Amino acid sequence: VTDPALVALDWGTSSLRAWLLGHGGEAIAAKAAPLGVLNVPVGGFARAFREVCGEWLREPLPAIACGMVGSRQGWAEAPYAPCPAGFADLTHGFVWADAGEGRRVALVPGLSCVDPAGVPDVMRGEETQVFGALGNVGGDGVFVLPGTHSKWVDVAGGRIERFATHMTGEVFAVLRTQSILGRLMAADAPHDPAAFRRGWEATLGSDGGLLHRLFGARTLALFDRLTPAGGASYLSGLLIGDEVRNALAMRRPATATLIGEPALCGLYREVLAACGVEARIASAEATARGLWRIAAASGLVRER
Amino acid sequence: VTDPALVALDWGTSSLRAWLLGHGGEAIAAKAAPLGVLNVPVGGFARAFREVCGEWLREPLPAIACGMVGSRQGWAEAPYAPCPAGFADLTHGFVWADAGEGRRVALVPGLSCVDPAGVPDVMRGEETQVFGALGNVGGDGVFVLPGTHSKWVDVAGGRIERFATHMTGEVFAVLRTQSILGRLMAADAPHDPAAFRRGWEATLGSDGGLLHRLFGARTLALFDRLTPAGGASYLSGLLIGDEVRNALAMRRPATATLIGEPALCGLYREVLAACGVEARIASAEATARGLWRIAAASGLVRER
Repeated sequence: VTDPALVALDWGTSSLRAWLLGHGGEAIAAKAAPLGVLNVPVGGFARAFREVCGEWLREPLPAIACGMVGSRQGWAEAPYAPCPAGFADLTHGFVWADAGEGRRVALVPGLSCVDPAGVPDVMRGEETQVFGALGNVGGDGVFVLPGTHSKWVDVAGGRIERFATHMTGEVFAVLRTQSILGRLMAADAPHDPAAFRRGWEATLGSDGGLLHRLFGARTLALFDRLTPAGGASYLSGLLIGDEVRNALAMRRPATATLIGEPALCGLYREVLAACGVEARIASAEATARGLWRIAAASGLVRER
Repeated sequence: VTDPALVALDWGTSSLRAWLLGHGGEAIAAKAAPLGVLNVPVGGFARAFREVCGEWLREPLPAIACGMVGSRQGWAEAPYAPCPAGFADLTHGFVWADAGEGRRVALVPGLSCVDPAGVPDVMRGEETQVFGALGNVGGDGVFVLPGTHSKWVDVAGGRIERFATHMTGEVFAVLRTQSILGRLMAADAPHDPAAFRRGWEATLGSDGGLLHRLFGARTLALFDRLTPAGGASYLSGLLIGDEVRNALAMRRPATATLIGEPALCGLYREVLAACGVEARIASAEATARGLWRIAAASGLVRER
């Protein structure tokens, strides 16, 4: 049996994932609980931590956590570190949360940056995934984290230079369930690859703007050129196409790394390929790897 | 007392407006009822017509109606006439609805066109407003009808050449009430001119795409750079700015005519002015004027 070296937590809005990592950063054990930040009562984080990780805490082990647990609504607030930011900026921004019984947990700060319009942007947790997926610790690359609030992250010399959030997943969800577009869509239809492709082709192949193209999801259905079963996939294609098109207008890499749910990453890879960008999909364990690397950079653990 | 010449109906999704027009097209009387197409039971249109217009129907008068009343969900379906389309195409597309007691109502067809991506677009009712607002019957111009589904309409030689719908108003409503953006916004705050201006300035002044800029409505509030009272106006500025920017990428007129609710038209005029387009706001009676002109073109009435 490997000796444990670190308790690593990915503590987000809706769930908590925890790993017991060995001295090479390898996972010895893993747990998950629906104890996201929104589900933990004020003052209840130490208890939730002990509930999930209790059996790993019989011997003294360092612990580290990333994600919304470090937000104002979380265990303790770890203020955003401004970009550009590397490992040292994250470890200098650690805030120590008191877990009781003499234990404490290092909370990794999120990152902030300012976009070309002078508007701030923020992330919490994604910085750890990016540093975990980075091929080598001082590397470069463009990282795409699709989801409710997709992130596009530019890394140079091992530092996150800048990033941008796109509300693609949330806009998809509200339009599908709350707008007139949803009325002509079958609920819970499986992914329709042809309809998805038509959606991003409509976006990449013409101007006119997203607010115009969205209406096409309705008119195509009215003219029986889009089936109810294909409606949601077409909308998804429109939105992901718009995100990719606009994100690539701000940066134009030859390759990119996708981090996230594999099926969703596959959709983004398809659209990126159509734009001439070759994308690889990172290992699902990017977060645990990132937490290990940040802990190693801080001296919390020593990599054997 | 002027002799009546025409019963003219603007019969939309949520309401019915009716005018009794004189031989010069002037309004002698007007009514409104919450008897929109969604609120009239199947088979109930003739009765609703008689309920609202009954006292005008003691003598035989021609009647004309535009809007969703001519859709598949309406009184009778008047199929879309394809663009380009002028007065003759609308009158040739009349469908006659039976109002009982020997009466009938001419339903004005909607229009369809195909956008540069090959996707169909449709309108019902707006064509009548445009023809009513057109300075002279054979005129030219760009017409903007802001609302739930905004329309941009290009008229040349008295014909609607093409048009495009933007889902601006509906996207605003669902994001404000159903997305994370609404959580940091005061409900029912009055219009905040400075926040509105910051929104469209952010859109016009930078690339990055709407899905990215939307997230700025959240981050600015997180950093206390946008008040809850200003949140909805900022979001409105982002969306109207995006619509105007993308619509002007497809056509670049020196002037435009706005048709619609005056306060909303004022917001569009502000953004158009920032883009170098001088906009005038059409008279609120564009619909009645358009119905009169279409009735005159069809021979249903003879203008004195």
